[in-house]
Amino acid sequence: MKSNLSPNNTCLNINLNKILENYRIVKKHLKKGCKVGAVVKANAYGLGQEQIVRTLYHDGCRKFCVSNLDEALQIDQSLKKDIYLMHGVGSMEMAELAIEEGFIPILNHLEQVEIWNSASKKKGKKLKAVIQIDTGMGRFGLSNFEIKQLIADSNLVSDIEIDYIMSHMSCAEQENHPATAMQLQEFKKCLKLFPGVKATFANSAGIFLGEDFHFNMVRPGCALYGINPTSTDYNPMNSVVELHGYIIQKRIIEKEQFIGYQAQYKAAKGEKLLVIECGYADGYVRALSNKGICYAEGYFLPVVGIISMDAIIVNASALPEALFNKITHIELLGKHITIDDIAKYANTISYEILTTRFGNRCKRFYIGDNNH
Amino acid sequence: MKSNLSPNNTCLNINLNKILENYRIVKKHLKKGCKVGAVVKANAYGLGQEQIVRTLYHDGCRKFCVSNLDEALQIDQSLKKDIYLMHGVGSMEMAELAIEEGFIPILNHLEQVEIWNSASKKKGKKLKAVIQIDTGMGRFGLSNFEIKQLIADSNLVSDIEIDYIMSHMSCAEQENHPATAMQLQEFKKCLKLFPGVKATFANSAGIFLGEDFHFNMVRPGCALYGINPTSTDYNPMNSVVELHGYIIQKRIIEKEQFIGYQAQYKAAKGEKLLVIECGYADGYVRALSNKGICYAEGYFLPVVGIISMDAIIVNASALPEALFNKITHIELLGKHITIDDIAKYANTISYEILTTRFGNRCKRFYIGDNNH
Repeated sequence: MKSNLSPNNTCLNINLNKILENYRIVKKHLKKGCKVGAVVKANAYGLGQEQIVRTLYHDGCRKFCVSNLDEALQIDQSLKKDIYLMHGVGSMEMAELAIEEGFIPILNHLEQVEIWNSASKKKGKKLKAVIQIDTGMGRFGLSNFEIKQLIADSNLVSDIEIDYIMSHMSCAEQENHPATAMQLQEFKKCLKLFPGVKATFANSAGIFLGEDFHFNMVRPGCALYGINPTSTDYNPMNSVVELHGYIIQKRIIEKEQFIGYQAQYKAAKGEKLLVIECGYADGYVRALSNKGICYAEGYFLPVVGIISMDAIIVNASALPEALFNKITHIELLGKHITIDDIAKYANTISYEILTTRFGNRCKRFYIGDNNH
Repeated sequence: MKSNLSPNNTCLNINLNKILENYRIVKKHLKKGCKVGAVVKANAYGLGQEQIVRTLYHDGCRKFCVSNLDEALQIDQSLKKDIYLMHGVGSMEMAELAIEEGFIPILNHLEQVEIWNSASKKKGKKLKAVIQIDTGMGRFGLSNFEIKQLIADSNLVSDIEIDYIMSHMSCAEQENHPATAMQLQEFKKCLKLFPGVKATFANSAGIFLGEDFHFNMVRPGCALYGINPTSTDYNPMNSVVELHGYIIQKRIIEKEQFIGYQAQYKAAKGEKLLVIECGYADGYVRALSNKGICYAEGYFLPVVGIISMDAIIVNASALPEALFNKITHIELLGKHITIDDIAKYANTISYEILTTRFGNRCKRFYIGDNNH
């Protein structure tokens, strides 16, 4: 919640209505009968697992993917749904807890398959699991050798109901990357070894590559949160986050001088600067020092100097004097400056910014959380 | 707290005893009579304001610096101490709340001076404040012109008890940076305008430049948290954080293949890889893709491929087979890999990593929190 005590504190506004719209856009793109397993790991990409699961559930979503047991246990268990554990189960203890809670593990290597098979046997019931195969990601998933072992010895999965065969795409968001076609081919080849079993292959980017990638379930993550899942500049998704910085000080430079740490920017006499109460501790990436762009009242304004923990400095010389005097806030992220823009300037990906930057000093504030 | 349910989850271990030692090291360096105002803004640089204020308070620290009212209100008010608001007070409402709570604002421009003076007048009592002057940081602090106004019109501070005159150093951690001497000279010149008033100038780096920088109070931040405050490779402070990653999968590559997103690393046949359950959402900076170094049992091992949200992949081919089979965890941050190392590889500063990376999925676990 936005604090009443320091009303100017920086908050990340998260629009749940836009996330819902993104979910619907994804669904419209799908092959008939294809299910959606919404990826809500890492606190729903840093945007709030609780609120987002609730929002999607109320729109009919019944499958959710998380990384591990801890994340799964945070989901409201009163809602009847399938929760997939992407990191599987690493011990009998974890398997037993997963069984008790009704979670479905994604089994990533033979040892995990053996654990789940034993746990199911002990329970006296064939229990659902997803088997992941590595088609080129090189991380998680059974190798070719392990798949051969699995096929050769059906005892290994005697007590498992294989819910889906899964693989994960490594380069789906890069236009025509050769790995994509190779992974798809490899995946289809493997599926022949598991006749009649359902399959799941596509992440957000894969969904937008067409129906050939959809199989029986897709696993959108970034697209729900407004990150562009395509390799083109046109983003079919809605932006879901906004960050506005409060102007704590306005300065007109009296005499040419250096600005900020390490004296990395020299302001000229007469330059109009804004000191914004939002530094890297509030989520504004330090790599945007002397690079970031902000927006106010029709003007794009550059960040100048090194970004500090609690503040950034913006050159607002382009603003007419009346506007300079009037404005109290500035858009750091929102309609005019997207999360993908910020990620590009900062030489990283939007996912990293969303998952790590907010929730500490910068609180999350929800728009549209009125389902209940 | 470390979860019992998913015992392998990544936790940031924070050693309060080491923070206490760092506090004592800082104190030993100080000129006689010089006070310490411990900087605990941004949740004590991301490491936990509550625990750290308590730890330092029990060792005699009575002055704490935070950014704003929200942070100040989170400090346990039952402890009698001076809390400085670095962003000052931006309105009468904020001033009145600060007065009620007994906080001391740092006034950064004339408007803030006017607000505090009015609020004090209204209260009928001269109230303490720090006046910050800009000696070259170009962010916060009265300009030369504003100082002249202040001196010319003593009514502006008629109801303020000036606790300290303050300035902030911009380049103190860079060896012999010309800005440092210039700022000190400018600061001393300004102090003459406020005879008899105490002064505060040095941050952590300034403290280690010698007694000439100490004046009446210093404001250590990074040094307390183990970040090297000097321009040399030798860090006089103790490392206070540790991050160990759980190995979720061990792989021996069957056939040359690409690893991870964007196919940015090709593993050779026979290469031994570890998949670690710690990705950028757990605090391991994505910029360390194909660059990071981890440590296990006497071996430094490279991170290979692009770091993903939930995992990193480490080339453990250097490990003898018995060790490869035995290990369950790997040091990502700690005795052998310091926070400054990580920051250097990631082309940022340790402060940014500490303040933004932990506390979301990666929980904080305290060592030495037994004062009470």
